[in-house]
Amino acid sequence: MKEIFPSIGYKSGELYVEETKVREIAEEVGTPVYIYSKRAIEKAYREIEEAFSKVNLLIAFAVKSNSNVWVLKVLKELGAGADTVSVGEIFRAITAGIEPKKILFAGVGKREDEIEFALERGILMFNVESEGELLKIESVAERLNKVAPIAVRVNPEVNPKTHPYIATGLRSSKFGVDFETALKLYRKAKESRYLKPIGIHFHIGSQITDVSAFEEAASKVKELVKELQSRGVEVEYFDAGGGLGINYKPDEKPVPAKALAEALIPHVKEVNCKLILEPGRRIVGNAGILVTKLLYRKETPEKLFYVVDAGMNDLARPSLYKAYHHIEPVKEISGERIKATVVGPICESGDQFGQDRPLPLLKEGELLAVFSAGAYGFSMASNYNSRPRPAEVLVDGSNFKVIRQRETLADLISREF
Amino acid sequence: MKEIFPSIGYKSGELYVEETKVREIAEEVGTPVYIYSKRAIEKAYREIEEAFSKVNLLIAFAVKSNSNVWVLKVLKELGAGADTVSVGEIFRAITAGIEPKKILFAGVGKREDEIEFALERGILMFNVESEGELLKIESVAERLNKVAPIAVRVNPEVNPKTHPYIATGLRSSKFGVDFETALKLYRKAKESRYLKPIGIHFHIGSQITDVSAFEEAASKVKELVKELQSRGVEVEYFDAGGGLGINYKPDEKPVPAKALAEALIPHVKEVNCKLILEPGRRIVGNAGILVTKLLYRKETPEKLFYVVDAGMNDLARPSLYKAYHHIEPVKEISGERIKATVVGPICESGDQFGQDRPLPLLKEGELLAVFSAGAYGFSMASNYNSRPRPAEVLVDGSNFKVIRQRETLADLISREF
Repeated sequence: MKEIFPSIGYKSGELYVEETKVREIAEEVGTPVYIYSKRAIEKAYREIEEAFSKVNLLIAFAVKSNSNVWVLKVLKELGAGADTVSVGEIFRAITAGIEPKKILFAGVGKREDEIEFALERGILMFNVESEGELLKIESVAERLNKVAPIAVRVNPEVNPKTHPYIATGLRSSKFGVDFETALKLYRKAKESRYLKPIGIHFHIGSQITDVSAFEEAASKVKELVKELQSRGVEVEYFDAGGGLGINYKPDEKPVPAKALAEALIPHVKEVNCKLILEPGRRIVGNAGILVTKLLYRKETPEKLFYVVDAGMNDLARPSLYKAYHHIEPVKEISGERIKATVVGPICESGDQFGQDRPLPLLKEGELLAVFSAGAYGFSMASNYNSRPRPAEVLVDGSNFKVIRQRETLADLISREF
Repeated sequence: MKEIFPSIGYKSGELYVEETKVREIAEEVGTPVYIYSKRAIEKAYREIEEAFSKVNLLIAFAVKSNSNVWVLKVLKELGAGADTVSVGEIFRAITAGIEPKKILFAGVGKREDEIEFALERGILMFNVESEGELLKIESVAERLNKVAPIAVRVNPEVNPKTHPYIATGLRSSKFGVDFETALKLYRKAKESRYLKPIGIHFHIGSQITDVSAFEEAASKVKELVKELQSRGVEVEYFDAGGGLGINYKPDEKPVPAKALAEALIPHVKEVNCKLILEPGRRIVGNAGILVTKLLYRKETPEKLFYVVDAGMNDLARPSLYKAYHHIEPVKEISGERIKATVVGPICESGDQFGQDRPLPLLKEGELLAVFSAGAYGFSMASNYNSRPRPAEVLVDGSNFKVIRQRETLADLISREF
């Protein structure tokens, strides 16, 4: 196979995911359709596992990146835990068979019913983002007569140089607390009968391609852990969050997980902690594609448009973050390329997958693959323009399985009657 | 009532929608919840109707702005038609009882099955966006032995000075065709046994607050209509699209519909056409609010955050377009205001409803109303972060009705099993 991304590439002129022809899936399931490679997920997971083999590591998969229960099951089989941010995500993780003792609950807006749900299931820990939340967790734990294991999310004040929407470790962001506040919250937690501080958490952002920010953050947080340990707080888990970037272009290389390991491990060892990582995109991002059909080739005086049957409701990243996603036809076509702007059917100019992309001249009806769609793809999909959401398919070798049925027109209105 | 927006305001210190207490709805239905005022919808509709009383007018409501079947029923009772962009929207409009003969089908990416659905229902006309689409409609009509009524969407090349994502009448956009191509398409349509040109369409953008762009566009399109009429094409409908803006700030005034009437009517009369308008936001935008609960008041060294229980998955406009939405507490509180940044629970820095807003110091558990949420609110909502989508409520005087049930955890995964 001529790989474009791991386990996805051309064979005899056709795009395959593992040993399965993409065209056959599209013909059977229709378009647009998300297709994930089990093998690519496993490979990306193991790269992290191996890079960190010298430390005690829990890989808590960031469920927000891809929430499909069957994708979570693949990760569960690999031994993954789950980084969750809502009761819905905890519910999904548990449905997939992930043990509660491997589930983290993060996020700045935990509701009381969500805290209760998590406490009753016995999750590993709450990553606490504010004093108000700590008090809320304490009061729920008291009501249920339980002890809530907590970590405080701290802001190490490093700038990860990524899109401002997904840079989350800065002082002006809504996330986490500064070190001084953290010390106060740990003291409070230590004194409470219903709270048990067991870890520390930071998360500096998403799609980060320079590990020096991780190194800087880990070093700062380690000092805080030392301070906590000197005050008698037992910090067992050092949760370094997620954020390791991927290459959205096939000819670029992602930062190796090894580099992250080198940046983190010395600090974690120094304070004798177990390490938690929360990768999402890194594991599933390049393991998925969105397959769409060319509906119309529209020539205007200024541009050639390829109007496809997927829209920003199916994959929001290009319009929301102006993100780059690589696009290739499902049929391998050599020779001359023209410039085409790939757009969806949604009535917004922002409904665009790529501007002036070098692509072969395609006929209407041909299939296109939008790459790197495994993370923040379906999980952000909406019904905007009353479009039923697409199907999701998981490929395993030469077999594939529909892991989420395409929505129907009836689904659109089922909760209105 | 001290109105903030029509039919929404304070009475005895509490926010009301018409004669219904917002707090009572929130207590019964939970938060977050979208609440719409029937009276406000009717008022906004009638303002347009009255401004254009001197011409034969079809108001085709832009279903994409608010697709709830019960909102569409309110519009149906007022006599509205529907501007649709997908089979899902046609299905919704018909479900609401809107006659197919008042339904338009627009959009750059009409699929064959969608064209078939529309032809079989007997809609008023297809707003055609490309030559490829015209040929596709012809071939479907031939197969079904029907005649497809069409309008060509033309680009009048005016710049409406709005957000680039929603400026849609420019030469470089994916929408419509230039005048020269239009003449060619009309000739083709006139010669076809399966196509019947009956109208012309343009749509210059969305949230436009300066009617001069409408005047300029209408004037140009009128000249094209004259040219078509001289070539024997009967243009019965002059579809001037939507796009009339609203005031997102309570103390600003929207452009009166009358001003739009003055800009359009002379041109429409000159060519003896019936007028079609496609308002969406203008009718429902300020008729809706999103009610959310304050979960945490989080003080950081730089900012005071109000963390609420609604997120960018519920209302995407602030993060997607950096749009302004007015925010006030449901309980009227006079006196000093502090600056608060209102954020949601989603794990993205972009999940924000308003930055440094002057608001009273609120206690956790208090309710906040996000205004102007009737358009492009629920219709763009997603399940991101595995959050069930909110409920929708329609108020009619002192009664209210849940017009869409809140989603459940089970709903999240129902299509995965």
